Amino acid sequence: MSALWQVTAGHFSNDRESIMRNGNVFQLANGYMGFRGTLDEFGPGELVGITLAGIFDRVGDAWREPVNAPNGGFTSVSLDSQEISALSTPIKTHRQTLHLRNAVFERETEYVSNGRTIRVRSERFLSAHVPNLGVIRYTVSCDSTARVRVSTGIDCNIWDLNGPHLCKMLLEKRDATLLVHAITGEAGRVVAVAEALECGFGTETHELLPKKNLRVIEWDAEAGKTYTFHKYFAVFTDQDPDGRASPMEAAIRCVNEAKARGYERCLREHGAEWDRKWDGCDVVIKGDDEAQLALRYSIFQLLMVAPVKGSANSIPARALSGQVYKGAIFWDTEMFMFPFFLHTCPDKAVELLRYRIRTLDGARRKARSEGAGYRGAFYAWESQETGDDACTYFNIGDPLTGRDLRTYFRDKQVHISGDVAIAIWEYFKVTGDDSLLLEGGAEVILECARFYFSYAYFKRDKNRYEILDVVGPDEYHERVNNNAFTSMVARATFEIANAAASYLGENHAAAFKALVAKLDIAAELPLFREAAELLFVPQPDPETQVIEQFDGYFKLQEATPGELKARMIHPNEYLGAGQGLAVPTRVIKQADVVMMLNLFKARYSTEVKRANWEYYEPRTEHGSSLSACAYAMVAADIGKLDWAWQYFLKTARIDLEAKYKVWVGTVFMGGSHPAANGGAWMTAVFGFGGLQAAPDHVVLNPRLCAKLSRLEFKMVYKGNRFRVRISRPEVEITADPSNTGKCKFLVRGDPIECGPGETCVVKARLDQAGEKP
Amino acid sequence: MSALWQVTAGHFSNDRESIMRNGNVFQLANGYMGFRGTLDEFGPGELVGITLAGIFDRVGDAWREPVNAPNGGFTSVSLDSQEISALSTPIKTHRQTLHLRNAVFERETEYVSNGRTIRVRSERFLSAHVPNLGVIRYTVSCDSTARVRVSTGIDCNIWDLNGPHLCKMLLEKRDATLLVHAITGEAGRVVAVAEALECGFGTETHELLPKKNLRVIEWDAEAGKTYTFHKYFAVFTDQDPDGRASPMEAAIRCVNEAKARGYERCLREHGAEWDRKWDGCDVVIKGDDEAQLALRYSIFQLLMVAPVKGSANSIPARALSGQVYKGAIFWDTEMFMFPFFLHTCPDKAVELLRYRIRTLDGARRKARSEGAGYRGAFYAWESQETGDDACTYFNIGDPLTGRDLRTYFRDKQVHISGDVAIAIWEYFKVTGDDSLLLEGGAEVILECARFYFSYAYFKRDKNRYEILDVVGPDEYHERVNNNAFTSMVARATFEIANAAASYLGENHAAAFKALVAKLDIAAELPLFREAAELLFVPQPDPETQVIEQFDGYFKLQEATPGELKARMIHPNEYLGAGQGLAVPTRVIKQADVVMMLNLFKARYSTEVKRANWEYYEPRTEHGSSLSACAYAMVAADIGKLDWAWQYFLKTARIDLEAKYKVWVGTVFMGGSHPAANGGAWMTAVFGFGGLQAAPDHVVLNPRLCAKLSRLEFKMVYKGNRFRVRISRPEVEITADPSNTGKCKFLVRGDPIECGPGETCVVKARLDQAGEKP
Repeated sequence: MSALWQVTAGHFSNDRESIMRNGNVFQLANGYMGFRGTLDEFGPGELVGITLAGIFDRVGDAWREPVNAPNGGFTSVSLDSQEISALSTPIKTHRQTLHLRNAVFERETEYVSNGRTIRVRSERFLSAHVPNLGVIRYTVSCDSTARVRVSTGIDCNIWDLNGPHLCKMLLEKRDATLLVHAITGEAGRVVAVAEALECGFGTETHELLPKKNLRVIEWDAEAGKTYTFHKYFAVFTDQDPDGRASPMEAAIRCVNEAKARGYERCLREHGAEWDRKWDGCDVVIKGDDEAQLALRYSIFQLLMVAPVKGSANSIPARALSGQVYKGAIFWDTEMFMFPFFLHTCPDKAVELLRYRIRTLDGARRKARSEGAGYRGAFYAWESQETGDDACTYFNIGDPLTGRDLRTYFRDKQVHISGDVAIAIWEYFKVTGDDSLLLEGGAEVILECARFYFSYAYFKRDKNRYEILDVVGPDEYHERVNNNAFTSMVARATFEIANAAASYLGENHAAAFKALVAKLDIAAELPLFREAAELLFVPQPDPETQVIEQFDGYFKLQEATPGELKARMIHPNEYLGAGQGLAVPTRVIKQADVVMMLNLFKARYSTEVKRANWEYYEPRTEHGSSLSACAYAMVAADIGKLDWAWQYFLKTARIDLEAKYKVWVGTVFMGGSHPAANGGAWMTAVFGFGGLQAAPDHVVLNPRLCAKLSRLEFKMVYKGNRFRVRISRPEVEITADPSNTGKCKFLVRGDPIECGPGETCVVKARLDQAGEKP
Repeated sequence: MSALWQVTAGHFSNDRESIMRNGNVFQLANGYMGFRGTLDEFGPGELVGITLAGIFDRVGDAWREPVNAPNGGFTSVSLDSQEISALSTPIKTHRQTLHLRNAVFERETEYVSNGRTIRVRSERFLSAHVPNLGVIRYTVSCDSTARVRVSTGIDCNIWDLNGPHLCKMLLEKRDATLLVHAITGEAGRVVAVAEALECGFGTETHELLPKKNLRVIEWDAEAGKTYTFHKYFAVFTDQDPDGRASPMEAAIRCVNEAKARGYERCLREHGAEWDRKWDGCDVVIKGDDEAQLALRYSIFQLLMVAPVKGSANSIPARALSGQVYKGAIFWDTEMFMFPFFLHTCPDKAVELLRYRIRTLDGARRKARSEGAGYRGAFYAWESQETGDDACTYFNIGDPLTGRDLRTYFRDKQVHISGDVAIAIWEYFKVTGDDSLLLEGGAEVILECARFYFSYAYFKRDKNRYEILDVVGPDEYHERVNNNAFTSMVARATFEIANAAASYLGENHAAAFKALVAKLDIAAELPLFREAAELLFVPQPDPETQVIEQFDGYFKLQEATPGELKARMIHPNEYLGAGQGLAVPTRVIKQADVVMMLNLFKARYSTEVKRANWEYYEPRTEHGSSLSACAYAMVAADIGKLDWAWQYFLKTARIDLEAKYKVWVGTVFMGGSHPAANGGAWMTAVFGFGGLQAAPDHVVLNPRLCAKLSRLEFKMVYKGNRFRVRISRPEVEITADPSNTGKCKFLVRGDPIECGPGETCVVKARLDQAGEKP
């Protein structure tokens, strides 16, 4: 049982690649910061990183990226003046474990040094209760007497991809507390790290090295005796509500309060938060324990990196695992991560959307400045704290020429705005909570519709609007016209804008009137209605049912991903951009039409979904981690359950297996894949569970594949919580006793109502076993 | 004086490069075929080429290209069994001359062989009187007695870029006539070459080698005596009016008739045609003899390659100098060559336009098949006999990767259709002849307007049509929106369509009604009027007067052509396409906005022209031979006369100096530049002469630069011929006595009328010296 709640490595491999991959697999996070799964004694060479959410900095012309904090979790040990480290000391045993249940990282290492065995054990967590806080219990024991020296404190040697970001760094000791503070170079934001120690043995001295603020504790250790101390470190910036006056004071206060509460209490508080989290969102699958662990690990990743309440932060594409991808927020969040939060913990979902409301002005600036100048909100392809675009126009290096390639991610991947609008509307639909619309959500929706109207062109001779010159999800084909996914997203945005206008007009007339006046948008609302009607979206071919991904796709050369690989001159060459090998062919990077069929699943028949899945699947390279889950979900939808399972495993295992590509040229691209994690949850719950939230009821069309004997998940709908248990013979829905009313379900077409505290069971009919619908 | 009518090389350089360049410089043509300026004894290794106009063939997947005929002009000599050739025999003197006055090529070579001197002299011409005919006089003499052997006949070793094109070749002797005939591989067209010899000495035997059909003449030559024979060769195909029944019979008849008339008469007939040609179009400039020769050479090139009357052929971008550029017709013809013919010999101009009428169906096919499928006529970027596009989507090889680059010349260089429509309308405007409109010219115009309407999009929020996603003249920036040149051309096409509809409706109502019915275009005519009104063309910036070349051009990086060259990794790398060095910068390949300001010169103020000339000139690489003349003409227009002169020399000297790039990788790109030749004439007559034809009068705003003391040219306007002599003190206009009426001129704003046979003189006012208007 507990094996399904933990990830373990039973030995230590002293190579750069393993250290980097374990740093990803064993990472911790608490929404405020991430802490890579590195060992206590590691430094920047081992990619130690405490990455802060929402704090960015830029040095010169290099990429802007999130700021890594000084490492308050640093500890090293020496034995009779011999430094002990996994990097240099012979290791007898090593084991490290990530506990998913409560997000605790544990390591235990036995070293052999001068014939003696020294055991080091530590466990650490980033508090889910106090987001600025990290807590560590560190234990040393030796099989014979020895002089032990522990150096512990704050390591200011920071691993940066494009740093250094922290300037004017000051290292101090204030009373018993170690303190480091600095300001970021670009915006002058203050970052402070404090550390407090609870240690009942040895003599302590303060050692101030140029980049290390350390305490040295020395003692003569008795043979076999265990020495344990506790460290409390806190990171504050002047962006934190508590840190505005003085991040330094806040950090000092935080660590000393934690120290006063003590390790066990801090751990209990932390664990209680994690119990609450899991209670709302765990998914249990029976039939494949490895898959269960991978799915749980995926959910764990999402839970760890959900933004701190009130922060209006979002989740970067590589979450808090480092500075990769500039720490930027992509469409990944709304399209792949948001659904998990929306259906399990809408209070986190709303935070993600508040981030888009907060960055609306950035999206407006981008709209004005791109291309010929647009109106409304064009959200950043790579969004940081202001919503201005961190994506460059030359975003990929060409290993064939050493030059940077012009890519159109930034200026042509216009579906991002609609992705945001769709998520806001989904939030309203699933929660029934219209407060977000009034807080700025409706403004975002209208500004996104306005953007698409200003981007769209009208084709007089065809009496239709078209969305031209875009990059769809398949980034190997840039600057295409009438991309089905993008046009459908734009059309949906117009529909949502119209629906939001109607809803607000009827239910919040004064607020809506004020919004229309503020945006001066009254004259445009009829145009949005016309555009929703007349915007062209490529339709299934009447013969084949296949939807052409964009104008001219069917005229491209036929090829397979494998054939393209065989043509490559350099293993890292990019297949897209102006002249990549995929460009003249039908090979696509990732789900595009299939992504559309999943996002708008209610609009398309099974026949169309099957035809397109079968057409595009062999032509898809899955060069993006976003691709597998779309193929998985549509496969489940059309009854290709074995395919669905294979693609489910692909998306669920990605971060646990950590076999993804991590270096492109000299650029580190490693880190976690929260979108794929969200895809794993979606495949389980939407795909196999068949969950679809309709405006006034919940649809459940479960299809368990051969590998799955049971599936159990939690969900929230309009404020009411439910547990759903699916087995072949039946579907059981249990409503939480605290629910406020009945909820209507449509289980494989059978309507039932489930009141607070009730359990409803729907038996499967013979032809509904789910194997091949 | 005669130095201004001939081009001479005073020695022979036995290297590939010189032989190739002389082959270009000394070439002959007569509209039916070209004959490179190679020596009689040369073969395919020396790029001997007799290139046929309008006959194309394709082998496998290689480029389609014009067919080269077997060489009926071949002659080699041996002396006492020792072969005499410029390639292997020591040369005492060599001189070759191209006579511009009558298009005769002459060579004289003294060889030293075994201590004796043998002199070979030949002169040849491609008859301007009988277009299938070539005539050669060949003379041999030796300073001591010797056994001389002449091999002369038809060499079937053909230089092809992408051949062989001639299949089933048969070599025969019919009576005294040598004959070679074959069929083209793709379309099975018959090509026949016959040769007749007039020789009064020696013994003749027939020698049939695998690829040579020869006569061998042997005799004992007396010391110092001159032996002369005459050769007549003819090329016919089954496409020729006289060749349809039997190209073989036609060729045999042709050479024997020529032989019967004899060399001198053939030369006189040929020379008379050339006298007529020159009489209608020579331009005399005083002040710079080199420039005079270069200009005359340019005009000579155009006269040589003008299509045969009734052929409805046009002039390829490398004329008849070989198979380069697939022998294809580009916009070069309408925009750069056509004006010369229009203003000097409109019977040739009309032939060029008939070619576009003949290929209208090809343009319709292209419109239907490109992109999302368009209506109307989208003329081929590289047009051959059917009007289907010979341009490939991957038209340039990348030396950096060895791969072919995706270029958008074919599918996005949409201005070509408007270039054709503008030329047709210009023809009507300048000649007053509306017969071409009725013969198909109006149909072409309406179909081009229809194409632009189906290509254009309407921008609702800006209430305008836009032409999106094009390549303008500057091919380094592909797929741009609102390219000023292209949009202006499209707008002009709508205006012309409207004007043509009005004119025909008023003057040829029945024919127009039939045309409208045939095209089913009645409902679209009002749309063309709307589009002419609402089509957006980028306007001068109110501050700087500079017109942005396309949306976003001003946001590109600043760079100079020299800076880009310094960044090149490979000397032959292409600066455009998806990722070329110029793409992200403001460096342009060739005149684009400046081209527009020249083409539509009456619509823009001097201030705007000056601002744009000065802005774009330093950013222009002149990577196309079309560029210099546009900068020359606008420089003249705005009074930058020294600049105009420099750019004039650049465009006028190009083929005479032959310093252009001829090899790109392994692809031969050498050959003549008739567009630049036309640019030289335009700069002289439109630029310095200041000629502009208005609908009912002729404008003359001459501006002589410092280097020019006098300029004299001929012109035709509405069927009346004039000689214009410009000097600093005065402008003298002489009307031909055969003119049918008075013509109104506006000379520097002064109106005068010039009746048949009259000479009118307008004295310059002091401030009109033309140095700095």
